[in-house]
Amino acid sequence: MDTPTVECWGLHEIRLDGPKTDQAFRETPFTVAFRKAHREIVVDGFYDGGGTYRARFMPDAEGDWSWESRSSTPALEGQSGALSVTTPSSGNHGPVRVRSPHDLAYADGTWFSNLGTTCYVWNHQEDKRFNQTLQTLKTTPFNKLRFCLFPKHYRYNENEPPLYPFPLLKQGDSGWQGSYQGEQRRGWEFDLEVFVPEYFQRLDRAIAALRDLGIEADLILFHPYDRWGFSHLPAEIEDRLLRYVAARFAAYRNLWWSFANEWDLMDNKSENDWERHARVIQESDPYGHLRGIHNCRRNYDHSRPWVTHVSFQGDPGKVAKLREQFGKPVVVDECRYEGNIEEGWGNITGRGMVERFWNAVHQGGFCGHGETYYNDEEVLWWSKGGVLTGDSPERIAFLRSIVESDGGGVYHPTGHWHWRKRGENDREFLYWGGEAQSREISLQLPEGKAYRAEIIDAWEMTTQKLPGPFTGRVVIPLPARPHCAVRLLRID
Amino acid sequence: MDTPTVECWGLHEIRLDGPKTDQAFRETPFTVAFRKAHREIVVDGFYDGGGTYRARFMPDAEGDWSWESRSSTPALEGQSGALSVTTPSSGNHGPVRVRSPHDLAYADGTWFSNLGTTCYVWNHQEDKRFNQTLQTLKTTPFNKLRFCLFPKHYRYNENEPPLYPFPLLKQGDSGWQGSYQGEQRRGWEFDLEVFVPEYFQRLDRAIAALRDLGIEADLILFHPYDRWGFSHLPAEIEDRLLRYVAARFAAYRNLWWSFANEWDLMDNKSENDWERHARVIQESDPYGHLRGIHNCRRNYDHSRPWVTHVSFQGDPGKVAKLREQFGKPVVVDECRYEGNIEEGWGNITGRGMVERFWNAVHQGGFCGHGETYYNDEEVLWWSKGGVLTGDSPERIAFLRSIVESDGGGVYHPTGHWHWRKRGENDREFLYWGGEAQSREISLQLPEGKAYRAEIIDAWEMTTQKLPGPFTGRVVIPLPARPHCAVRLLRID
Repeated sequence: MDTPTVECWGLHEIRLDGPKTDQAFRETPFTVAFRKAHREIVVDGFYDGGGTYRARFMPDAEGDWSWESRSSTPALEGQSGALSVTTPSSGNHGPVRVRSPHDLAYADGTWFSNLGTTCYVWNHQEDKRFNQTLQTLKTTPFNKLRFCLFPKHYRYNENEPPLYPFPLLKQGDSGWQGSYQGEQRRGWEFDLEVFVPEYFQRLDRAIAALRDLGIEADLILFHPYDRWGFSHLPAEIEDRLLRYVAARFAAYRNLWWSFANEWDLMDNKSENDWERHARVIQESDPYGHLRGIHNCRRNYDHSRPWVTHVSFQGDPGKVAKLREQFGKPVVVDECRYEGNIEEGWGNITGRGMVERFWNAVHQGGFCGHGETYYNDEEVLWWSKGGVLTGDSPERIAFLRSIVESDGGGVYHPTGHWHWRKRGENDREFLYWGGEAQSREISLQLPEGKAYRAEIIDAWEMTTQKLPGPFTGRVVIPLPARPHCAVRLLRID
Repeated sequence: MDTPTVECWGLHEIRLDGPKTDQAFRETPFTVAFRKAHREIVVDGFYDGGGTYRARFMPDAEGDWSWESRSSTPALEGQSGALSVTTPSSGNHGPVRVRSPHDLAYADGTWFSNLGTTCYVWNHQEDKRFNQTLQTLKTTPFNKLRFCLFPKHYRYNENEPPLYPFPLLKQGDSGWQGSYQGEQRRGWEFDLEVFVPEYFQRLDRAIAALRDLGIEADLILFHPYDRWGFSHLPAEIEDRLLRYVAARFAAYRNLWWSFANEWDLMDNKSENDWERHARVIQESDPYGHLRGIHNCRRNYDHSRPWVTHVSFQGDPGKVAKLREQFGKPVVVDECRYEGNIEEGWGNITGRGMVERFWNAVHQGGFCGHGETYYNDEEVLWWSKGGVLTGDSPERIAFLRSIVESDGGGVYHPTGHWHWRKRGENDREFLYWGGEAQSREISLQLPEGKAYRAEIIDAWEMTTQKLPGPFTGRVVIPLPARPHCAVRLLRID
């Protein structure tokens, strides 16, 4: 048999046959040690039902690797093989990492602009919708998607998912009564001792499809919007599930761990629970994927060592403060939704969304999008995916083209609130006016450096180039309308 | 001689001749006791230069009053007379008072909607501009004006005022170098032992003219934007000046005391100074006019008993919190300026200004306007007055017509953030969408009460009436665009 090949940061899967037993869901059935010279990475295998066992590996170095399995189950013990890791294909930049206190980059050094969107349970919709969402994502600028391990209970979400993570014992009530609180376990019963492999296979499909579109999968492990009881699992089941999920998904290079959507609304979980979850994932994920925990009103203590970045719901105008407070990349994963529903978080304008994105970027952070335009089918992008009809995505694409130019990078303070800079040797200064309609903006440029200017209308998506050269104290005339920016770019 | 008459809350002035001496500026030259039956109100007289002494009185009750002067100066001692106080003329509602923890009303019970504007030093411009500003104010909805006792040093303010409060000894520099800080006393010298009566006579004219337009005069006593040294007067001179100002202006029914514009930027003043100023004014003002102190970044301790209302610079979205925190009326006297100048506080859109006004009103507070559109003459409304060219004043007039209907009153919380109410027996509910573009809004109306609805577009200034009757749980369809409101008004 030829040595199988996989590209660096690709997913290599070893499949073994073993006993057909639900017991295999309850503990790690085997491990596989992958070795290259003196280096060894041990990954947990997992049971995929029907006597099929799998172990997945994401190599991070090209060349020849070998592997060997360990198990107390004879059929899974002592298997071995080899693996040839090749150059990553174009578009494969590896997993995203924190590259400097406030910045993110792929493993190959490419800057990650983190322009995200949210479809909480697109993966829990029927196949037609699932595929439609992927089609839509293909045409958008978004390179990260937030979505949930568990289905969602909320207004506009009274449909049942095609599958459940545990075998269904008793059907409950699906109706929305106006509040998620105290509505857990509305008659639903599941056999929590067993996983439903098809449920997780669907997640495999989702994560892989996003990877193939160049989109990071920010997988939300827990959330409060629940009618089935999945927000109230016993600790033992939670930990087992987290280990299973890590064994199953950690080898996808585009995976991020989001420990919660709105952790502070999950009254039944204490800080000890969140810290325990973090320990389990850290122990089970050999690649150290990014880890965040997203708030409703109150921030988690993002200074905890396991938190890699600040996952923030709130006003992007707070990014600069959060950067200082935590010294980590700040990702505004939820800044409200472009849409027209009654709920106060779901009815900002396209302009409002674009303003928030620029606010976050200007202050040296990242931003996430979402959309909640009502339609009679009640397929709102924010939750189910489907299609986008708002005004902001094309403007976010325009923003992406700007921020990713010249190697990208987050912006940093200059001492003048309205001006930020990035790049070595004062490569670029950025003014962002937000809602202001200033007729001019001034700046003292660094001694001996010359710049050209671009006056950008973030809404009209136009760029006016002023060749300059600009030096010393400059006063740049502006169009005196909201949502304009100026970039000063070195030319000397 | 016939008994002179004055209307209730009018200004009655007694003029006495006495010695021509600058010493009379340095201490209260005489007092006058006004008596009605067993009631007595003692007012301080003041020296107006050239041997002319005046005492001013604002009666608060109709009928016959007598008066008698007291002084250590023989010419001013033991004078007496009578006064007949008549019914106030139409448009004279008396001074504004706090009428309930968060609300304001004139002395006659008429609600005061407090839709203000700001022309910091309109009164320190030449007569042509002074009169032009009054002409402009005649056509606007504003019923309060913030302006300064002292002239202003700032960008766009390099002209000298026609008069100074003290005799000029040495001319200094008028140029703006980019910062107000540490720029006090840029070569200017004054004889601080003497007042210039013409300076204060001009203020008389200003306050009286505003009164005749139905506009409250929110007189700012101190502010940091100074090149003449008036922000750094010795404490003794400050106190003397405050007593003089109170003796001179307190009888104007439309007077409010604003102890500072941006108190927290006046580094040379301690809390003791501010408290001393407040004591002096309280001792010298027999009518107890409203007293506030306005912040830049840090609020004064508005819980001090002498502070009658929260005079706030900042985001009107904070009104609800400030109401709770201080239990006093909240007046957002500065929410940025509609305009297009570079300075970050001076370039919001007309829409932005209108949104802020509605935000403040909806949260149960009051708001103030200002305008900073640049013109080559550098006559910006915010400082010098002149003309208004912005989009917000007519929308503020529209807002005024709404809030003053049905007797007015501030709005109060309902438990549902987006809905506020006012009036007895749930007379009116108000929804305000702000930047939201919701397609509908729902509300559970109180049992047994029926309402009609008005759907208001605050920007387009349109009102769509829905006769209803609305009862029980209602879902009101909205135009799904920003800056719309709904009023539900009882019809049963």
